[in-house]
Amino acid sequence: MNELRLPAAGEFALLKKNYLFTEVRRKTAAFLEENGGEVINLGVGDVAYPLPPAVTEALASASLEMGDNVRFKGYPPEGGYPFLRRAIVSYYEGLGVKIKEEEVFVGDGAKTDVSSFAEVFGRTEALVTDPVYPVYADSSVLLGNAVKFLRGNKSNGFLPPPPRGDDKPRIIYLCSPNNPSGGAYDRAGLKEWVDYALSTGSVIFFDAAYSAFAGEGIPRSVFETDGAKECCVEFCSFSKFAGFTNLRCSWVTVPEELKCRKTQVIALWRRRQSTKFNGVSYPVQRAAEAALSPEGRRECEKTVSIYKSNAERISAFLGSRGVWHCGGKNSPYIWLECPERLSSEEFFDGLLNNCRIVGTPGNGFGSAGEGFFRLSCFAREEVVAEALERLGDCPYFR
Amino acid sequence: MNELRLPAAGEFALLKKNYLFTEVRRKTAAFLEENGGEVINLGVGDVAYPLPPAVTEALASASLEMGDNVRFKGYPPEGGYPFLRRAIVSYYEGLGVKIKEEEVFVGDGAKTDVSSFAEVFGRTEALVTDPVYPVYADSSVLLGNAVKFLRGNKSNGFLPPPPRGDDKPRIIYLCSPNNPSGGAYDRAGLKEWVDYALSTGSVIFFDAAYSAFAGEGIPRSVFETDGAKECCVEFCSFSKFAGFTNLRCSWVTVPEELKCRKTQVIALWRRRQSTKFNGVSYPVQRAAEAALSPEGRRECEKTVSIYKSNAERISAFLGSRGVWHCGGKNSPYIWLECPERLSSEEFFDGLLNNCRIVGTPGNGFGSAGEGFFRLSCFAREEVVAEALERLGDCPYFR
Repeated sequence: MNELRLPAAGEFALLKKNYLFTEVRRKTAAFLEENGGEVINLGVGDVAYPLPPAVTEALASASLEMGDNVRFKGYPPEGGYPFLRRAIVSYYEGLGVKIKEEEVFVGDGAKTDVSSFAEVFGRTEALVTDPVYPVYADSSVLLGNAVKFLRGNKSNGFLPPPPRGDDKPRIIYLCSPNNPSGGAYDRAGLKEWVDYALSTGSVIFFDAAYSAFAGEGIPRSVFETDGAKECCVEFCSFSKFAGFTNLRCSWVTVPEELKCRKTQVIALWRRRQSTKFNGVSYPVQRAAEAALSPEGRRECEKTVSIYKSNAERISAFLGSRGVWHCGGKNSPYIWLECPERLSSEEFFDGLLNNCRIVGTPGNGFGSAGEGFFRLSCFAREEVVAEALERLGDCPYFR
Repeated sequence: MNELRLPAAGEFALLKKNYLFTEVRRKTAAFLEENGGEVINLGVGDVAYPLPPAVTEALASASLEMGDNVRFKGYPPEGGYPFLRRAIVSYYEGLGVKIKEEEVFVGDGAKTDVSSFAEVFGRTEALVTDPVYPVYADSSVLLGNAVKFLRGNKSNGFLPPPPRGDDKPRIIYLCSPNNPSGGAYDRAGLKEWVDYALSTGSVIFFDAAYSAFAGEGIPRSVFETDGAKECCVEFCSFSKFAGFTNLRCSWVTVPEELKCRKTQVIALWRRRQSTKFNGVSYPVQRAAEAALSPEGRRECEKTVSIYKSNAERISAFLGSRGVWHCGGKNSPYIWLECPERLSSEEFFDGLLNNCRIVGTPGNGFGSAGEGFFRLSCFAREEVVAEALERLGDCPYFR
């Protein structure tokens, strides 16, 4: 048997064997294979309600255009169709933020965007809060970047502040509202990070995938903060707001002001994208435009409010049983301390076996997540009602 | 004004300022801005006919499912929906090739796939034929890989054979049928490359994006060659065959047999994709499935045959004027020697100014392409008729 004489990229050996959610899916499938029946899935943060009517209509009607001799479209324009970039610029205007169309790059998902963007910088160190969405650290490692973790805990509300007395320039990954803890930086908290980035010459990769869940006093865009345009890139997604986990549409905002040693970051990203990416389809971009229309936004917000009310109900239940938890206010996730001092994995197994409920073990989001657990509130409301019944009977919560 | 203290990735400085087709689009737009009117675009290889009815119907009907409470889908499964992976396996069966469903990874475009795959290997050298699709060299450079070019020329039909007396293991990028020259390896030519890869421990990245244009005696898959499963990865696309340049759908075939020093390449790619990619939408995968159905294939082949007949007509014209050219038989591209010993760029400007026809300068595909020029035959037949009239009157071809 022949073998390549090329080495495998050494970075893979530094990662866990499976991506976190691949592993959650694998364990769920194994459980079902062994035990049969159904489970309630509050694990992977996948939306549960269909696309709203305005969005579906835009998607289907643009799909039909693709079969028409005159209206058919070839390669999408680099960076996105002007109609969608304009809609995104208007979205920012609604937040009081001025962004130019050319600063917006439409992509096929925040995961792709956020895991690729560091390619425009030289090898450096990533600063990653812990626990957090595993893609930041995993993709940094794959790129050959060092990773420094900043531990979240109950006393800092899983929202660690910038490290003191450390002025090393880095790529700082911030996710607010946070996945998994549900914490969210207020204006002052975000200003502290922006000032820290400015003073250290760092760049912030701001993941705003959950911005639609942000309530009163929580910025939806990092660019609501003074100085952010000189040190931040923002990643946004239609996945959680408009139910696009399947359709795949996102955007990155790269301010023209952002420079590394005289080089405009936007020029590097434009070159990277034109070389390695061919854009997002016309029907999906039309669907995204519809999600940002007044009617689409009303419809999307209706669904978001169901997810938020799911979170309130789960939070109220856990509160009534004296379980420490956070999140659920500005986010679709509940982050709870595992009962009976169980490890994250033990509780995962226990909850699955006792209640047939799948969650996500907190240690999958980083070592500071050990002993904690994430419940996703992306579920139909009747499913959450059933989950609450099962949790009510669960030996862990008596 | 604040500047990041991070360096820009040094690799960008090694590339031309703009990606080739960005540059072609930019020059075309500048010409139209200055001169007004219209041009005939035979530059970027973008399809000109709409999606066939079977494909459009599948796309639109799956789009409507996304608005339905029951049929709605969330995250697509990693690697692609089973229905599409099965259809791809059947496609291979039609070529006499046995591929397993798990060896097929559905992606959002061959550009994305082929520019990412080298991430699973350690830093190495890329072997790139010249002239060729610029993404191979550009993405290798961005990844930090060295690039060795293998010069094509008139005497090797722009299909260079493996280098003799050189047993260095490398990533070998092959595109057959070739973009831009239209040359295509026959069975013997491909066998020579596979044997070379096996003997040097190299991996072949086989870009089969134009396989639908391959005629008699030209393999459509590298896996038609003995031994290929131990040294090849294959990149396929729905773009040119089924008119998906807008929709974005592709696949990569990674044989389980492919190993680098005891590590299965397929396991690395799976980890890479689950970390950095979230798949292709359900409507687009349903459309791709329809393109591979018997009805869809008949419809797609009808369009392909129009592009092929465009190529025949352009080739016949050039032949009648004694212009050296190749391609157009197994490919949608004509590769011609610039008349009057003009450079590629001079001819680009001359053709644009004299005939208002946009092509692609050959030097954009590599230095061995200097003095040559690519005409794309992806155009409506009436557009090609008009182009031929203009070429007939063109001072270069008298």
